[in-house]
Amino acid sequence: MLSKAQIKTIHSLRRKKNRQISGRFLAEGVKVVEELLQSNIPIEKIFALEEWREGFSPENNNKRPELIRISEKELKQISGLETPQQVLAVCFIPAHPEGALTGKISLMLEAVRDPGNLGTIIRVADWFGIENILCSPDCVDVFNPKAVQATMGSIARVNVIYGDLLKMIEDNRELPLYAATLNGKEITAFSKIREGILLLGNEAHGLSRELLTRADHCITIPRIGKAESLNVAVAAGIICSWVKAKG
Amino acid sequence: MLSKAQIKTIHSLRRKKNRQISGRFLAEGVKVVEELLQSNIPIEKIFALEEWREGFSPENNNKRPELIRISEKELKQISGLETPQQVLAVCFIPAHPEGALTGKISLMLEAVRDPGNLGTIIRVADWFGIENILCSPDCVDVFNPKAVQATMGSIARVNVIYGDLLKMIEDNRELPLYAATLNGKEITAFSKIREGILLLGNEAHGLSRELLTRADHCITIPRIGKAESLNVAVAAGIICSWVKAKG
Repeated sequence: MLSKAQIKTIHSLRRKKNRQISGRFLAEGVKVVEELLQSNIPIEKIFALEEWREGFSPENNNKRPELIRISEKELKQISGLETPQQVLAVCFIPAHPEGALTGKISLMLEAVRDPGNLGTIIRVADWFGIENILCSPDCVDVFNPKAVQATMGSIARVNVIYGDLLKMIEDNRELPLYAATLNGKEITAFSKIREGILLLGNEAHGLSRELLTRADHCITIPRIGKAESLNVAVAAGIICSWVKAKG
Repeated sequence: MLSKAQIKTIHSLRRKKNRQISGRFLAEGVKVVEELLQSNIPIEKIFALEEWREGFSPENNNKRPELIRISEKELKQISGLETPQQVLAVCFIPAHPEGALTGKISLMLEAVRDPGNLGTIIRVADWFGIENILCSPDCVDVFNPKAVQATMGSIARVNVIYGDLLKMIEDNRELPLYAATLNGKEITAFSKIREGILLLGNEAHGLSRELLTRADHCITIPRIGKAESLNVAVAAGIICSWVKAKG
């Protein structure tokens, strides 16, 4: 059974301000919730249909979240998905991890606004073993429900750190900075890159001049046809696949 | 000025059935509409704010669509976007093009359901100079407004053909069929591919066994981290970038 207060709390977490005040976020869907259960992200409550609960063994899980069984009708009341998927969890936002970027490839994103794009980039990072994504403060919030959904659980394994990008570049000035642009060196011409920061810009405007001037290398995905640009998550995927390939 | 009948017609075109009956589809946003104006897709009507109309020269355009000036309030009434973007066009669905696939790379999609993914794949195809995308009948409709939006205008340059995939494979049996799977040969190990069909599957279930058994080669994007899969549009982008790279 779902109380009115619970419905209100869940809906409140669709807004960034409320997520920041309460320190909680929403995760929806079987795949995402199961990945989070296996991660080190603490889960407060799980709202689930009977069919999901049947397959869940709380004794195999050291998190022991509170489990609330709900009906399909109740799930529709709290879900943000067009087709609700059995389960919704209220999770705690983990503390910002601080780790060195040396010896690794990291991603840096300027003003990526679309939650689906950010979530998909997190999934790309997880696929290619990239641990850290540095985001400008005007990137969409990673705990936006649509972003969480698009990560397909990868949010549990990738650190997303918000901050001033120029300061982050300054703090890591020993690392080469590769900026994705439309007129740089073709990525197919690079050999494997072992450490550095890959910088991608806003969906509509690309990278700001301020950041571009800091780049050590400009890299470009060779174009054969006529599209003016690629989706930023697709570009991230292509660049990571070449950067990580054996050169 | 916008009439009630016009508002009703526009909203009706958000449904596939109505698009098929009327032979029309919607395109929104400055970038998408301007790309369509330069394409061979016929445009019936353009609803636009004064600021868009000011920059538009109908005499430079051989389409001469009917131009209806509307207010911001009226645009909100007809727009499907969260942030309406100056202009919305009613276009005619072009006739299905029939062209040989020989000597080219084509994409084939099985049951891609998400309009954003299909639109993004069309943009990928356009970037890499791929002319044809073959879709199973249960793929989302390419003239879905969200798909049109995600193509960012590339819909004007890429042919999307719906039909029975097994029959299409049979009709092109001289062409090698490359299926994207999780356990095939790594794409980084292929050299440049000059002709063939690249087959990608459903977001959640991948490819059906029926299609998989027809593949001449299974291809895989090397995984370094822990994500179970990649977004299908990202996978299409990475595969196209390797297939089209000089080997």
